[in-house]
Amino acid sequence: MIKTFAEDKTGEWLAANSLPDACFIRPSGNPIPSTQFATFLAGDVCITEKNLIKIHKLDVGADMAFACTSESGKFTYKGQPNDDPSFTVSSVWKKVGGSWKLAWAHRSTATGNDLSTWESFQP
Amino acid sequence: MIKTFAEDKTGEWLAANSLPDACFIRPSGNPIPSTQFATFLAGDVCITEKNLIKIHKLDVGADMAFACTSESGKFTYKGQPNDDPSFTVSSVWKKVGGSWKLAWAHRSTATGNDLSTWESFQP
Repeated sequence: MIKTFAEDKTGEWLAANSLPDACFIRPSGNPIPSTQFATFLAGDVCITEKNLIKIHKLDVGADMAFACTSESGKFTYKGQPNDDPSFTVSSVWKKVGGSWKLAWAHRSTATGNDLSTWESFQP
Repeated sequence: MIKTFAEDKTGEWLAANSLPDACFIRPSGNPIPSTQFATFLAGDVCITEKNLIKIHKLDVGADMAFACTSESGKFTYKGQPNDDPSFTVSSVWKKVGGSWKLAWAHRSTATGNDLSTWESFQP
């Protein structure tokens, strides 16, 4: 059983920890609703490696929280290999029945992503 | 006086309605902290037009909220003209002293952005 998002290459963790109305926004800004997560991750996208580089921000409210992370990933998209050394993910989480569930995620491009731009960031 | 974000081309509304630790994530994933909003909007970027196309999602919690919108904009970046017919912005807001303030925003590319991908989206 996959226990953390960082280990999740198949969408198993995501499926168990996302709200039914969660949505993932691709770098293009086009949405993938949670109902399509499994199909997307078992179809067009095949993740071979993913890593959490750094948590830049984590802000926890009463029933909602948000985070921003730098991540890296290797995957094929429709058979085309991708090696993204770094990209940024902003995510929103909601507390439902005592558990934090993913409500929204928005991923940047890897093209032009420069980790050094975070050096002076004050969380 | 600028009353809404939609009218704000200079960052005046943004400066008045953002938290000190707010941050704008560019399509590349590189951050612009709120302390640099004014410099950015009065320097590298000159906005000539911006429009809200659609609010796809608005979810309001006890002290935090998030939204996702499609927007369009015309601006110059370091003198280079840009005409972005559509892009996606995910944003997080926090209730501070009874007012909602911008805490985080993440903008997609305009390249590859396709409004028709939102047609079947269920908020």
